[in-house]
Amino acid sequence: MEETFVPLRGIKNDLRGRLMCYKQDWTSGFRAGYRILAPTTYIFFASAIPVISFGEQLERSTDGVLTAVQTLVSTAVCGIIHSIIGGQPLLILGVAEPTVIMYTFMFNFAKEQKDLGPKLFLAWTGWVCVWTAGLLFLLAILGACSIINRFTRVAGELFGLLIAMLFMQQAIKGLVEEFRIPQREDKSLLEFVPSWRFANGMFALVLSFGLLLTALKSRKARSWRYGSGSLRGFIADYGVPLMVLVWTAVSYIPTSSVPKGIPRRLFSPNPWSPGAYENWTVIKQMLDVPVLYIIGAFIPATMIAVLYYFDHSVASQLSQQKEFNLRKPSSYHYDLLLLGFLTLMCGLIGIPPSNGVIPQSPMHTKSLATLKHQLLRNKLVATARKSMKKNASLGQLYGNMQEAYHQMQTPLIYQGASSQGLNELKESTIQAASSMGNYIDAPVDETVFDVEKEIDDLLPVEVKEQRLSNLLQAALVGGCVAAMPLLKKIPTSVLWGYFAFMAIESLPGNQFWERILLLFTAPSRRYKVLEEYHATFVETVPFKTIAMFTIFQTVYLLICFGLTWVPIAGVMFPLMIMLLVPVRQYFLPKFFKGAHLQDLDAAEYEEAPALPFNLAAETELGAGASYAGDSEILDEALPEAEVNLSIPRISELRGVPSPRSGGRGPHSPKTGEVKPSILGKSPSSNTTS
Amino acid sequence: MEETFVPLRGIKNDLRGRLMCYKQDWTSGFRAGYRILAPTTYIFFASAIPVISFGEQLERSTDGVLTAVQTLVSTAVCGIIHSIIGGQPLLILGVAEPTVIMYTFMFNFAKEQKDLGPKLFLAWTGWVCVWTAGLLFLLAILGACSIINRFTRVAGELFGLLIAMLFMQQAIKGLVEEFRIPQREDKSLLEFVPSWRFANGMFALVLSFGLLLTALKSRKARSWRYGSGSLRGFIADYGVPLMVLVWTAVSYIPTSSVPKGIPRRLFSPNPWSPGAYENWTVIKQMLDVPVLYIIGAFIPATMIAVLYYFDHSVASQLSQQKEFNLRKPSSYHYDLLLLGFLTLMCGLIGIPPSNGVIPQSPMHTKSLATLKHQLLRNKLVATARKSMKKNASLGQLYGNMQEAYHQMQTPLIYQGASSQGLNELKESTIQAASSMGNYIDAPVDETVFDVEKEIDDLLPVEVKEQRLSNLLQAALVGGCVAAMPLLKKIPTSVLWGYFAFMAIESLPGNQFWERILLLFTAPSRRYKVLEEYHATFVETVPFKTIAMFTIFQTVYLLICFGLTWVPIAGVMFPLMIMLLVPVRQYFLPKFFKGAHLQDLDAAEYEEAPALPFNLAAETELGAGASYAGDSEILDEALPEAEVNLSIPRISELRGVPSPRSGGRGPHSPKTGEVKPSILGKSPSSNTTS
Repeated sequence: MEETFVPLRGIKNDLRGRLMCYKQDWTSGFRAGYRILAPTTYIFFASAIPVISFGEQLERSTDGVLTAVQTLVSTAVCGIIHSIIGGQPLLILGVAEPTVIMYTFMFNFAKEQKDLGPKLFLAWTGWVCVWTAGLLFLLAILGACSIINRFTRVAGELFGLLIAMLFMQQAIKGLVEEFRIPQREDKSLLEFVPSWRFANGMFALVLSFGLLLTALKSRKARSWRYGSGSLRGFIADYGVPLMVLVWTAVSYIPTSSVPKGIPRRLFSPNPWSPGAYENWTVIKQMLDVPVLYIIGAFIPATMIAVLYYFDHSVASQLSQQKEFNLRKPSSYHYDLLLLGFLTLMCGLIGIPPSNGVIPQSPMHTKSLATLKHQLLRNKLVATARKSMKKNASLGQLYGNMQEAYHQMQTPLIYQGASSQGLNELKESTIQAASSMGNYIDAPVDETVFDVEKEIDDLLPVEVKEQRLSNLLQAALVGGCVAAMPLLKKIPTSVLWGYFAFMAIESLPGNQFWERILLLFTAPSRRYKVLEEYHATFVETVPFKTIAMFTIFQTVYLLICFGLTWVPIAGVMFPLMIMLLVPVRQYFLPKFFKGAHLQDLDAAEYEEAPALPFNLAAETELGAGASYAGDSEILDEALPEAEVNLSIPRISELRGVPSPRSGGRGPHSPKTGEVKPSILGKSPSSNTTS
Repeated sequence: MEETFVPLRGIKNDLRGRLMCYKQDWTSGFRAGYRILAPTTYIFFASAIPVISFGEQLERSTDGVLTAVQTLVSTAVCGIIHSIIGGQPLLILGVAEPTVIMYTFMFNFAKEQKDLGPKLFLAWTGWVCVWTAGLLFLLAILGACSIINRFTRVAGELFGLLIAMLFMQQAIKGLVEEFRIPQREDKSLLEFVPSWRFANGMFALVLSFGLLLTALKSRKARSWRYGSGSLRGFIADYGVPLMVLVWTAVSYIPTSSVPKGIPRRLFSPNPWSPGAYENWTVIKQMLDVPVLYIIGAFIPATMIAVLYYFDHSVASQLSQQKEFNLRKPSSYHYDLLLLGFLTLMCGLIGIPPSNGVIPQSPMHTKSLATLKHQLLRNKLVATARKSMKKNASLGQLYGNMQEAYHQMQTPLIYQGASSQGLNELKESTIQAASSMGNYIDAPVDETVFDVEKEIDDLLPVEVKEQRLSNLLQAALVGGCVAAMPLLKKIPTSVLWGYFAFMAIESLPGNQFWERILLLFTAPSRRYKVLEEYHATFVETVPFKTIAMFTIFQTVYLLICFGLTWVPIAGVMFPLMIMLLVPVRQYFLPKFFKGAHLQDLDAAEYEEAPALPFNLAAETELGAGASYAGDSEILDEALPEAEVNLSIPRISELRGVPSPRSGGRGPHSPKTGEVKPSILGKSPSSNTTS
């Protein structure tokens, strides 16, 4: 993305880029067929469950003025609009926790003012949204998103981890609450006598841990050993929603002697009750708000604008990380502009606005990467099997697969690069095969080329970039409003388990998290981190430096987390994270060597030195001449720059140790130290848990 | 073991064999130092917890005549005597479930007889024990244990799985009971109102699953990535007892509003209360038993004798499986003779007798194999490090390690074979190393030879065969009688979790269980079973035959399990398992090919065909000549007979996928099909769960 502050240029660039692939965004989605339902339902649950829970929270803190119905409607409407006319369709919109906190503060303020009161609260927030929208337009037009480039891994991952901590905090808080009497309830009810409260708390522990553990297990179903492939695939795709159903069903097992209120279930208004829509005509009351308050609304509006500007852009950025090898362009400026319109609309109809959410947005991209992998894999397996039947040689086999692979490629390739993955791998594979005594011209069979496994390893990470899954999930969220009577059957404890699940699911792939784990890893096992996560820095940066950097980041994270506990000021924690940009740019280089910083946290503004790359090319030629045919020694001679060309494999994104790790292709993280075990075994094979 | 029915010859052979190594049994135990405490505490818990629970069961069914104090004393006294003068010190003695069931039946019978009644019950059981002892003497002297050779894997493993099922059944029953009012309790207590009962049940679920999951995780601590090696070792060694403590502590967290009886805890008499010892003078009352009943006692005595004869021998056999590579001789006849004396003693002092128990006995051997592995490993790692400091070459390094290894060997090697493990592996390792470009004469460093990892892989399974751990654990069980007030703090739900843990811990290594799993394994992943368990039959026997055989065995298992539910006759389920001997010998060969049967269930009486072995040797020479230096092709040419020479690795016994699997040394299960992946990766590396 070009760093430009010329008014409107950013928006124009974004629009031009996204329009080029707009049609393909839809056709590609429809071409995936029923399989699109896997990421759709996965994200639908990840999106709807927190929104319902935030809605309940909002209901308690606004005396019922806003409920889960409003948060669901906002999420659904904004989501549908964004998926159709938004820029980046990987971005998921929803009512987020900071919005809930802001609205709580605003309600507490408005309630106390005799000129406003609860009655004019929504009208006043309407004005706040108007100001916020104006500020967002300004930011979008002036190209404020250009500085997103200055947002390095450090900032984004710190934010991601902070959100995970907040989700986990919510899960723990919720579970503790299960042992207490909820505020709004009648304390004399049977279910609130100490014994039933204790029983409810224990039941909640069973349900939430049950959901958490089974949901985590089900996500890894594809690598299970038992059951047919299609069953395992089904569980991996739909296991999490399925587990919500299963544990909800379990919560109905004890019926006879247990009071109705145990376990506690979602409390939400019936969307068809008479009062449910009275606050939808807020726009009419907006002129009743005194002028002073209309002007005063600018103050919370600036805070919300900064929050949204940051949240929206970082959510978008995290869903477009380099590892995903996306082919379609980003759209930060245009999306911010659209967010302005959406905020305006939400304000005028009296519902809390939505913005881009973490961890749902990166979860969306990951699930689409899994989908794309499945589609590519099925195609290539079919091709390989067909070729083998015709007694093709290894060379022909790869030729055919290469062809099939290219047919699957999006014709429009925006950012130049890419799509060489398979080709490169072909070379190295054939080299490896011939060095193992299999000849490239001989017909291959399944003993030499284990179709399913090899293809899994061959495929680079690609993402099914389209708009359909986003549209469908938003529509399903909208459907939740109608399905409220069904949703009310879900126990709150299942919700807390789900929050914990989301927090844990967002960790793999977060290098900051992996570095924290590295600090606790026994020195002799550190090389395993390298194998699993392609974490090249483990080799290139001294451990002491990694530790220092990680500790600095952790302290910073804890400060941000502490800030969220401070009333009102707490909402501004994004400012602390934005502060990381200058800290990273001006402060950190004084304490860390440039090369180390670049390895730990590559910033585009710090140009990568060009020399190592040329060196790599030269060494390759030189080594190739003298050790002809010995690919291993060749690999070991390659300097680190080579690493940056490598494309991560799908299994790594999923957090599953890749079978490739420990292998000896040129794509190994840094082959020099992938301990060439003298027995020729993969050291990662004893990493089972 | 020689199959002899000459009176006393079996006992003489056993005594001769064990006396040869008696002194070494003690010195070796003391030489292990404090490390002996790891297997000791592990087995102490596995032994004491079920015995306490059986004691409680017995107390309920004998109206308090027998309690946990008596079962603990029996286990401790018999254990101490057996560990000192018994034959096979790997065998663990304890009061087992079948004994409890027999005593319950006998009590119900005696209670109804007006000449006996509860008062003369123990005196009568004294007579039963006298008869039982007589029968056991007879069996021992006549060499009845000789036929233990005819007990093949099929019978032993079926019995092992049956015991696991009974343990699991006990765990489930116990958990369900937590939701109900216990029989002996006052129903009007506060803790038995429906709400507190439900709360108690839910709390029990949390505690038992908490214990089960954490205990299972802690056993695998050695392969964790986090924490220092010594911490991980400590957790692996003492994690299970530690978890019992942790979850007992957790059960004390809710104190304020919860009644004292929640969660339920062990109920056991104070061993210092006045009435606790009154039944220890049973011998005086034995002559008060009417003659008719003295003679009638012969009927239950035959049943107990058959039961003990079977149980004791199979427990002993399972603790001496081939995979453990034991060096000291078995002692079936002499141990049965000693069991006769122990039964007599227990009968005369009015406590239920102990016999060899499953799964504790094989668990004992496994934990001693882990201990031996640790000891060998530490020695070899130290040696290797020292050699490397002196810039030794790979050849010298292995020389030094070989020497250190031999120093660690028991000087007395009874059964001939063995101790070549390291030598063989040296050859293959050096071959592999040189084919990878590392030269045998060049100095090695840690990048080439990853000391800790390589040595783990090199070491064959060996067992620290000694008497100390058995003596100590029995003494600790005795200490439990004094520590009863402490034991009463353990919640019963932790016990149920522990039962489930024991059931699950006994599964890995049970080939019957692995074959059941294989039935549910996707065809494309079946080769992984081969890698993990060295399950050669996967290759040599058609899947359909494996399935048929396993289904037959499963049906048989279910019949045995069903039998345990039948009153009185249920105790005789061992007869069903003994029936497997003729079934295996005469019936199965009619349905399965001899070679297949031999692979699935090697029986010593069916002589293994000698031809393949010679062939192996020849092929090795031939192939070696023509493909000189290419060890891989050589390996692939080796026929299966080679497999039987392989020594399993410690990691396989632990149920952890070995890093060796998928490797290409001559010890790979059957190298022909360990898919020589063309990328040279180990296929097992994506087996994480």
